[in-house]
Amino acid sequence: MKSVLNFCNSLSDLMFSASAVIRRQHFLIRTFANPYKSQSHHRTIMQETKCMSGNNSLEADAEKILRTITPKLDLSRHKGQAGKIAVVGGCREYTGAPYFAAISALKIGADLSHVFCTKDAATVIKSYSPELIVHPVLEESYSVRDEDRKSVSAKVLAEVDKWMERFDCLVIGPGLGRDPFLLDCVSEIMKHAREANVPMVVDGDGLFLVTNCLDLVSGYPLAVLTPNVNEYKRLIQKVLNCEVNGQDAPEQLLSLARRIGGVTILQKGKSDLISDGETVKSVSIFGSPRRCGGQGDILSGSVAVFLSWARHFILTGEGNLSISPTNATVLGCIAGAALLRKAASLAFADNKRATLTGDIINCLGRSLEDICPAS
Amino acid sequence: MKSVLNFCNSLSDLMFSASAVIRRQHFLIRTFANPYKSQSHHRTIMQETKCMSGNNSLEADAEKILRTITPKLDLSRHKGQAGKIAVVGGCREYTGAPYFAAISALKIGADLSHVFCTKDAATVIKSYSPELIVHPVLEESYSVRDEDRKSVSAKVLAEVDKWMERFDCLVIGPGLGRDPFLLDCVSEIMKHAREANVPMVVDGDGLFLVTNCLDLVSGYPLAVLTPNVNEYKRLIQKVLNCEVNGQDAPEQLLSLARRIGGVTILQKGKSDLISDGETVKSVSIFGSPRRCGGQGDILSGSVAVFLSWARHFILTGEGNLSISPTNATVLGCIAGAALLRKAASLAFADNKRATLTGDIINCLGRSLEDICPAS
Repeated sequence: MKSVLNFCNSLSDLMFSASAVIRRQHFLIRTFANPYKSQSHHRTIMQETKCMSGNNSLEADAEKILRTITPKLDLSRHKGQAGKIAVVGGCREYTGAPYFAAISALKIGADLSHVFCTKDAATVIKSYSPELIVHPVLEESYSVRDEDRKSVSAKVLAEVDKWMERFDCLVIGPGLGRDPFLLDCVSEIMKHAREANVPMVVDGDGLFLVTNCLDLVSGYPLAVLTPNVNEYKRLIQKVLNCEVNGQDAPEQLLSLARRIGGVTILQKGKSDLISDGETVKSVSIFGSPRRCGGQGDILSGSVAVFLSWARHFILTGEGNLSISPTNATVLGCIAGAALLRKAASLAFADNKRATLTGDIINCLGRSLEDICPAS
Repeated sequence: MKSVLNFCNSLSDLMFSASAVIRRQHFLIRTFANPYKSQSHHRTIMQETKCMSGNNSLEADAEKILRTITPKLDLSRHKGQAGKIAVVGGCREYTGAPYFAAISALKIGADLSHVFCTKDAATVIKSYSPELIVHPVLEESYSVRDEDRKSVSAKVLAEVDKWMERFDCLVIGPGLGRDPFLLDCVSEIMKHAREANVPMVVDGDGLFLVTNCLDLVSGYPLAVLTPNVNEYKRLIQKVLNCEVNGQDAPEQLLSLARRIGGVTILQKGKSDLISDGETVKSVSIFGSPRRCGGQGDILSGSVAVFLSWARHFILTGEGNLSISPTNATVLGCIAGAALLRKAASLAFADNKRATLTGDIINCLGRSLEDICPAS
């Protein structure tokens, strides 16, 4: 019996490691099985969510989902098998955001967490923690002559490409800034990630980039957008050409996700709403009233890890998929939102008004242990 | 009832967000309603404070004021609504002071805290904490050629201007240094802040700048000066052309604030004295006998936050203004002085002679919770 289990584990590990092939397969399955649902199907879902919005049936069973997708700890596993995450962000102005995202991924249980940022940012981010692998490869306009742009851009891309296939998920945007040359390079990185079927969680300035160039994510089912109030407003205006409708929030979110070709959107708010254009779920548990900057970065790093775990769980057929929904990106969002809320609630209980983002990160482990004990 | 409350909250949030317009309105109201009181009114107040100085009636009810102006925490609020503060300071020599001011603002409950400093200082300040947003935009003489001064100055100003309207308060001076070119740039930043009606708390080297160029703050009711013994002495000599009079301290402070056109002055000492040229209040509670450097920076960051909250409280008409005085800058000073004293007292109880400024910052949250519980 034990040897059968070992074999299954080895097979599962092999599959998780051979991620590029699996990603391609998964992408093809999703594309063929579920490309663009018909308009009538859409209408039915709209009606369903309309019916649901008055009661609590939108609410995901977030703790169960989190418990289900989080892999069991196993002494036979080796480094990297619990996830390799990379954050693309960090520039002259911002260093805290990419750090928060990358360290959160580690604190939740990823084995390796990388940051791709500018030289200026790299020294600082490295100094925050020796736990991260920080690549000083991005460049901003002020450090690149016009005639060198093409060659520098190619070099940046080559540096990131060397690593691309190893990552289970990218987080694009924390502390990225708005430098046009840097954003052009990041657009290319996103195209390569998409070609390699690497999932992407897009937040912060990455959402600024995506809102101005929807093609970067449109129709890519492994893309997750995590907009806050203002970022969501800009997305709605750009894509649906209207204003945010607080009364019919689930329906509007569903339309938005559908119009961007089935990407998953986590709309942050008093309740977090999540949709991939097919289903809408909410996460309302726990939480804290402190709104200190940086919590969105914890979320993006967390979603990246849970999304990777959910894909692994689904792809390797562990368990009986007794959870709903079954889209890994949606599951990742639900688990990430729930864990952040729980950690924020614990940090607030300890620190009250003085709660900072670092305090919440320090509570990630305890929250995870409360919901999903390690043994 | 709940929907009315929600509406009021939304309105209040909207008003806090539309800060530029409100600042302008508030400025006009203050200017018309209360420009320069007549000489006879001044005499009356002088007599009043003279009568009061023998007893304790100058003492502000600081804890009540702090409790009243501190906003309730509310799950429906989003990032930024509890305050966005910026510290202008930090040069080749000084990095601790701007950090202390900026992190104190966050620890009290501001959502976002920025620092505008030189390149040399930025790397270090960033490395102290990922919670701050640090802009390496200021320049000192040694790094700028004479012929480039004008263009560099314009660039510095443009970098700060991009952000100006978003800030609820600036803190000018912690660790600014005395470099003439840098101080010239900061003078321009102060002029722009004033045009945008952004409140300013001026401390440290900012007071050196202001003492040499009173026009930067003269007649600006949203300016707060926080001089220590020596800085106060220089101000008195420059403005009133006499020496500090310890016997009639409240009257002299009142005259000083009036002569600088109604700015608010927080004179730090055994008791803190606060005046806007119309009223004088003291804060004498708690405190610590340790005088380690950096406590003034905690104070300037704290006053910036409380001042922003007091303005919000007054402008949105929350409560019934059952507190006195009713000038937001004076209320901010009273609350800031009280909180620092309380935190210093707690830190001293724990650390005795070894108490450092960081220990006091670590007690800000507990002090706030003691005076004004979060829930």
